[in-house]
Amino acid sequence: MAVKMVVVGSVALDTLKTPKGKRERALGGSAVYFSTVASYFTKVGLVGVAGKDFHKDHISFLESHGVDLEGFEQTEGKTFFWEGSYGADFGDATTHATHLNVFEAFDPKLPDAYRDAEFLFLANIHPSLQLKVIERVNKPRLIAMDTMNFWITSALEELKAVLKKVHVLFLNKQEAVQLSGEQKLAPAVFKLLEMGPMRVVVKMGETGALTATKNSWFFTPAFPCPNIIDPTGAGDSFGGGLMGYLAQSLDLSENGFRRGMIYGSAMGSITVEQFSLDSYKNLSRAVIDERYMKICEMLRVS
Amino acid sequence: MAVKMVVVGSVALDTLKTPKGKRERALGGSAVYFSTVASYFTKVGLVGVAGKDFHKDHISFLESHGVDLEGFEQTEGKTFFWEGSYGADFGDATTHATHLNVFEAFDPKLPDAYRDAEFLFLANIHPSLQLKVIERVNKPRLIAMDTMNFWITSALEELKAVLKKVHVLFLNKQEAVQLSGEQKLAPAVFKLLEMGPMRVVVKMGETGALTATKNSWFFTPAFPCPNIIDPTGAGDSFGGGLMGYLAQSLDLSENGFRRGMIYGSAMGSITVEQFSLDSYKNLSRAVIDERYMKICEMLRVS
Repeated sequence: MAVKMVVVGSVALDTLKTPKGKRERALGGSAVYFSTVASYFTKVGLVGVAGKDFHKDHISFLESHGVDLEGFEQTEGKTFFWEGSYGADFGDATTHATHLNVFEAFDPKLPDAYRDAEFLFLANIHPSLQLKVIERVNKPRLIAMDTMNFWITSALEELKAVLKKVHVLFLNKQEAVQLSGEQKLAPAVFKLLEMGPMRVVVKMGETGALTATKNSWFFTPAFPCPNIIDPTGAGDSFGGGLMGYLAQSLDLSENGFRRGMIYGSAMGSITVEQFSLDSYKNLSRAVIDERYMKICEMLRVS
Repeated sequence: MAVKMVVVGSVALDTLKTPKGKRERALGGSAVYFSTVASYFTKVGLVGVAGKDFHKDHISFLESHGVDLEGFEQTEGKTFFWEGSYGADFGDATTHATHLNVFEAFDPKLPDAYRDAEFLFLANIHPSLQLKVIERVNKPRLIAMDTMNFWITSALEELKAVLKKVHVLFLNKQEAVQLSGEQKLAPAVFKLLEMGPMRVVVKMGETGALTATKNSWFFTPAFPCPNIIDPTGAGDSFGGGLMGYLAQSLDLSENGFRRGMIYGSAMGSITVEQFSLDSYKNLSRAVIDERYMKICEMLRVS
C-alpha cells in the first residue's frame, strides 16, 4: 500500500513522572505519536532516527500499526532522550534532561517512494530541515507544520521561510502569541494568517483547539477526561488525528477540517488516558469513532 | 410590565486604564452590566446600591434600557469605586484601589413585586447576602450565582450553603480549580456538580465558555474580536446574555442552555468592543442576533 502521508519528526525515549506514576525510557517522540495515531486513518510513513538502544519492541509496535519505516533509520549512538515531570495540574512539564544524541545530527532522508505522498506533516524540528523536506516532495495536497518557542527565538528567519511554504500551521497559544507579536488570541491568529499559512491550528490542551482561516473560525472542545495519566504527546496525537482524517477523507473543505479537528481532539484525549503510547496497544477504530461522536454531541445546537 | 428576572449585585464607578486608553469614574458594576445586557431579552429588575455621587445620567441610561429600578437605592455616601489597569494581554486587571463605600453596608432589599420573579441572578456578593435574597424569593424557575476567589477563601461555609440552593453556578477557571480542589478542568467541573448546582458555567475569557451538567458538556467559542478596548464586565455581560435568553425563551432544556451560552458569548464580545457600557448606547437587538448567528456558524459541523 502506497504511503499517503509522511511525517518527519522525533523518535524518543521519555523518562517521565506525572501525579499518576512514572515511566522510564518509554516510547515517545513527535513522529511516533503522530504516525501511530494517523495509522488508524491512512498509510503513513515515518521519517526519523533512533539509536542502537531503540528496542525492537518499539519497532514492532510501529509495524503492527502499519507504519511504513522505510524512512526510519537506526544509527550508531543513543536515541533522543527526554526526562521531565508534570505537576498536579498536568501543565507544562519541567524538563530535567534533554539528550539529543543521534537526533542532533538528524538529516531527514526522504525515500523516493515518499516523494509522491499527498500529505506531509513536519513535526517540531529545525525549520531548515523542514524546508529541506518540502523541497524533496513533489506536489502534496497539504503540507502542515508544527513548531515551538525554541525555533521562534533561535531560527526565526528560517521559520518565516517555512511558513510561506505550508498550508497549515500548528502551534500552541503561547507560541501563537510569541510568533505573531500579538498578545490576544484573535489578533495573533489573524497576524499568523498573514505570514503564509492559509490555516492556523492553535492547540489549547484541556480547553480544546481552534482552527481559523481568513474566513472561518472553529473551536473543538477537548473531551473531558476524568482521569488524565500522562499528557505527553497529546498535541502530536491531535495532529495525527486531524491530518489522518483529512488523508483518509480527502475532504479539505471547511467542514472536512472541522471533522478533522474533532478527530484530533478525540485522539488527544485517548493518548492522555495512559502512559506513553499505551492507549494504542489495543485500540480499535470503533472506540475512536465513539469518542468522535461524543465530541460532536458536545457541539450540537439546534 | 412585571419583572421577570432579578439581579442582585454591585453598582460601581470604575477608573480604568487599558492599552487602548483610559476612563475615569465610568459606569460599571456587576448588576449594571448584567441588567443592561439582559434588558435586550427580558424585563429585569436591579437590586443594588449607589451613593449620592452616582450621576443621574447613569440612572437615565438604565431606565432607557427598561431596567426596573424599584430595588435600586441611592444612599448617603459614595458609590463603590474601583481603579484598575490592564496589561498588553488584557488579562487579569491590576487593582490600584477598591473603595467599597456604600456597598460595604449593602443589605439587598427585594421589593415585594420582585418576589415572584422567575429568574434570579446573584452576582458576586457575599454568600450570606446571596442566601438572604434566596430566602426572600418565592419559587423561581432558575437561580444562578456568580462568586469569586475572595469568598472562596473568606466565606467558604456560607458559599457551600448557597451552592446547595442554586441551579447554576458561574465562575472562571481559576475559581473552579480553587473551589473544587481539583487542578484539571474536567475533574474540577465534575466535583462542583457534586456540591449542589445542577449546572456549572466556566467563563474562560477570549477562549470561550463551558457549561456542563452530569450528563452534558458544551463549549461556546468567544467571538474573535479584532480590537478589544476594555474587558471590564465581559463576564457579567456573558451572564446577562445567557440568563436573558433563558428568561425570554423559557427553554431550560440542554439545547436552550446551549443557545443561551452563545448569546452570552455574543454579549461578552459586544461589551469589550468599547469602554464601560458604551457598546449599549445605541445597540439594537438585530446586531446581537447577527453576532449570535456568527457564533452558531463557528460551531457547525455536518
